[in-house]
Formats: sequence, C-alpha cells, structure tokens
Amino acid sequence: MNKFIWPVRVYHEDTDGTGVVYHTNYLKFMERARTELLRYLGIEQTLLKQEYNLIFVARKFTVEYIKPAFFNDLLDVTVKITKLGKVSLIMEHQVLRNSEILCAGNIKIGVINFTNHQPQILPIKTIEQMRKVC
Amino acid sequence: MNKFIWPVRVYHEDTDGTGVVYHTNYLKFMERARTELLRYLGIEQTLLKQEYNLIFVARKFTVEYIKPAFFNDLLDVTVKITKLGKVSLIMEHQVLRNSEILCAGNIKIGVINFTNHQPQILPIKTIEQMRKVC
Amino acid sequence: MNKFIWPVRVYHEDTDGTGVVYHTNYLKFMERARTELLRYLGIEQTLLKQEYNLIFVARKFTVEYIKPAFFNDLLDVTVKITKLGKVSLIMEHQVLRNSEILCAGNIKIGVINFTNHQPQILPIKTIEQMRKVC
Amino acid sequence: MNKFIWPVRVYHEDTDGTGVVYHTNYLKFMERARTELLRYLGIEQTLLKQEYNLIFVARKFTVEYIKPAFFNDLLDVTVKITKLGKVSLIMEHQVLRNSEILCAGNIKIGVINFTNHQPQILPIKTIEQMRKVC
Repeated sequence: MNKFIWPVRVYHEDTDGTGVVYHTNYLKFMERARTELLRYLGIEQTLLKQEYNLIFVARKFTVEYIKPAFFNDLLDVTVKITKLGKVSLIMEHQVLRNSEILCAGNIKIGVINFTNHQPQILPIKTIEQMRKVC
Repeated sequence: MNKFIWPVRVYHEDTDGTGVVYHTNYLKFMERARTELLRYLGIEQTLLKQEYNLIFVARKFTVEYIKPAFFNDLLDVTVKITKLGKVSLIMEHQVLRNSEILCAGNIKIGVINFTNHQPQILPIKTIEQMRKVC
Repeated sequence: MNKFIWPVRVYHEDTDGTGVVYHTNYLKFMERARTELLRYLGIEQTLLKQEYNLIFVARKFTVEYIKPAFFNDLLDVTVKITKLGKVSLIMEHQVLRNSEILCAGNIKIGVINFTNHQPQILPIKTIEQMRKVC
Repeated sequence: MNKFIWPVRVYHEDTDGTGVVYHTNYLKFMERARTELLRYLGIEQTLLKQEYNLIFVARKFTVEYIKPAFFNDLLDVTVKITKLGKVSLIMEHQVLRNSEILCAGNIKIGVINFTNHQPQILPIKTIEQMRKVC
C-alpha cells in the first residue's frame, strides 16, 4: 500500500513549556490520520457504532521520538494498515517534516462492543474496505 | 460561603511553548475544583447520571487572565456557587499562587437531560446539598 | 470585513465522556482560526517572536455554548478582528455546523514582550496587515 | 525499590466520547507520577534547567491498555526507575484501580541540553538522588 498521508499543523495547544510538541500530542496526530484513512476508505466510525455498536480502542502503542516538532510546523502524518485481523488490527505511523522523520508509532487497535467492551468481529464490508490498502 | 479551595499542581502537560500555562487549561483546573466541591457536598455526578439521567453542561464562561502560571507552580483553585437555580447555576472561580490572583472565571452551568439535551430540574436533595454553601 | 473561516474536524481527542465536544476545546478551535487568520495576512508569530521578542496572550475570554458538537462533525470556525489597538486587540469567533451556530467567543488579546511579560507595541507593519481585515 | 505511587482522579477532561479515559491521557498521568517521584527525591526540574540548562525528553514509549478507566475513578499511578544511565533512563509505570491494573507503560527518557537538544550528562548529585530508588 501507498501510505495514506494526513497534514497536521502545529498550534500553541500542541506545544509544551520546553518549546516543542508535547509527547502525548503525536498520538493525537496519529489518531487523526487513522480517522481520516478510515473516512477515505468509506468507513465512518459514527455509523459502525450506530449500526453494529462497535468501536475501536487502543490495545498497545509504541512510539519513538526522534526529533522535536515546533509551533507552526506543517507535519505529514502517515498511516498504514500492516496487519488486519477480525477483532484487531495493527497500524504504523510516521510523523514527518519536509520528509524528515520526527516520530514513529505502531498501534494495535482492538475492535470491541461499545456496551460490554468485549471483542467484536469487524463487519465483512469493513474488512473489505480496509483490505484495499493492505 | 467560605470558598472551597482545590490545589492544582502545574505539570508539563499544562504549559505551552511560550513557557506558561496554556489559556484553556485554567478552565480545566476550574472544572476540577467544581467536581471536587460537588464531591465534598456528597453530590456524585456519576450517580446523578445513573439515577436521573442528568448531566451538567457549560452555558457561558468568562475568564480573565491576570498573571501567568508556570511549570511546577502549586495553585489554589477556588469555587463558590453564587446563584443557584433549578435548571442552572453560576459558579465563580479564582486561580491563586501564594494568595496572588492569576486568573478569575465565572461560569454558568446548565442542568440537562443526558439523552435529549433539554433542561432538567435538579433533584431537591441536590439543591439542598448545594444550598449549604450558598 | 468578511469573516475569515477555518474548518475544524472533530476527532475523539476533542470529545468528553458525555459524548460531546469538551467545553475547553472550542477555545482551541478558536485559536487555530486566529493563528490561520494571521498566517493568511502574512503575519507569522514565529517571526514576531524572533524579530521583536513579541508574543500574544489571552487577556479575557467570553464563550457562550449554544448547541453541542459531536465526534466527526465538520465545523466552521470564524474569526473577525473587532478592535485593533497598539498593545491589544479584540477578536470575535463563531463555531458553526452547517451554518448553525454552536458556540460564540469574544477574546481580548494582549501583545507582550516574551521576556518580561510587559505590554509591547505591535510593529506598524503588523498593524497595517491586520487593518486590511478590520 | 518499592514503587512510588501517585494518586490521580479522572475528570471530564480526561475522558472521550466513548465514555472512557482517552488513550493519550494515561501518558499524562504517568508523567505526573514521574514528576512527583523526582520531587520526592529532591530533584526539581525547574532547578535542573536553571542551573544546568538540562531538560528531560521522551525517547520511546510503550503503553499497553488492559482495561478502561472511567470518569470519577481514583487511580494509582506507579513509577519505578528500572535503568539509570548518564544520559538516559528507563521508567516503568502501572495505572491501577483498586489494585487492578488498567494500563502499563515503559518509557525511555533522554537527558538533553535545552538549547541545542543534544544529550547532556546528568549531574552526579541527581544520579545519586535517583539511585536511592533504583
């Protein structure tokens, strides 16, 4: 798959008192890219919840911080589905500034029932939509 | 009423790239103090939602920023109920460092039904609990 | 002036446990719109700090919450400079969904010296750039 | 070492629209515990920056999400220094509710110069203070 790329501008809200992007905010940027990849594939989380009572949750996150990003930086956040299961998936992210990698992340996502928080199988249609980019 | 006071320590997460507490975070500090005042009065928001399907929402917020707070500061956040109605209340806040006022806020809170977001009357017991500090 | 409009998508990070956008996050959305208006006018805060040691700070914020926004909503955040002084300015914001107003804000911004936090006069060039939209 | 434990109350600000603590916020809770461990050991980050121009940065973070936390939960966040080097250290965290583990994290912290972002050796005194709990 070609990586899906989502641009993110760094605002004051993203920085901390040491003058750089606060370390947790890269995880927010990565989630924006995941959400937009799903939208690009025609997968709306709002509908998955309404129709299947299904939501995605973070299971495991590994993030490497390589170089700092600063206020006003325009970043590219990439996302790639690297493993697609029925009740979980793995996605890989990079945060880049002018093609230079600043941060890399690998997240395992669980698919669960919103009410009882138990694993729930992804609808076939959703898996097929995701397969287009695997 | 004597003001209710809740201590808040400033962490990296609260600061921004200009080296001071980010302006929206004082509103978070004030909400922590409101939540703790309610708890002190024996009012648990979790129970209000379970029993009455009732939640609180912000209606109007006015905040004045007087002096900056910095990483590691230990702040006192005060809260006072200044008007107590059946479907809304007004609370006043101050954020202080060593008795010096850094920020002041005045919030109008609405009482609504969680499902339809329409105004809902506070339980009499809750009003009585709040009256103790009005 | 025609209002400057900046689109903001609501992500999970913006919502709270009551299912709507958390009240402080509208203030972040408004700041994004202010930052982008300045950029549109050719005013880069990074340069103002480097060249003049000048930063903007919030002095007073009034926000009215009219209707809730939800995950996945695409919002329009407007910004308008309504008063332009030498050491302060007032900006007005609206947050809209399909032209319906959800939230309105009015902020007084101070212009200060980054080092000593004292008021500092805006460069003439910056005032002229801002005047184009007053 | 006995683990250092820091209590964290979950407020509305910490939750997201799926009704649980938003995944990035556990990283904030862990940083609060790290900051308080350092304070407990007599290490003030504000002084390290003033005296040595030294700051800590996140290098690598691994987080496992086991069970969700909810609004109003009172959590215990533990922190333990598991590896202490001259320009980096590793810390382990657990987030617990009534002794049940909800989230676990492992962070590699870098010690850098605030100005040039290059690795900088920890002062001997600071290493000795940390060694007490290794």
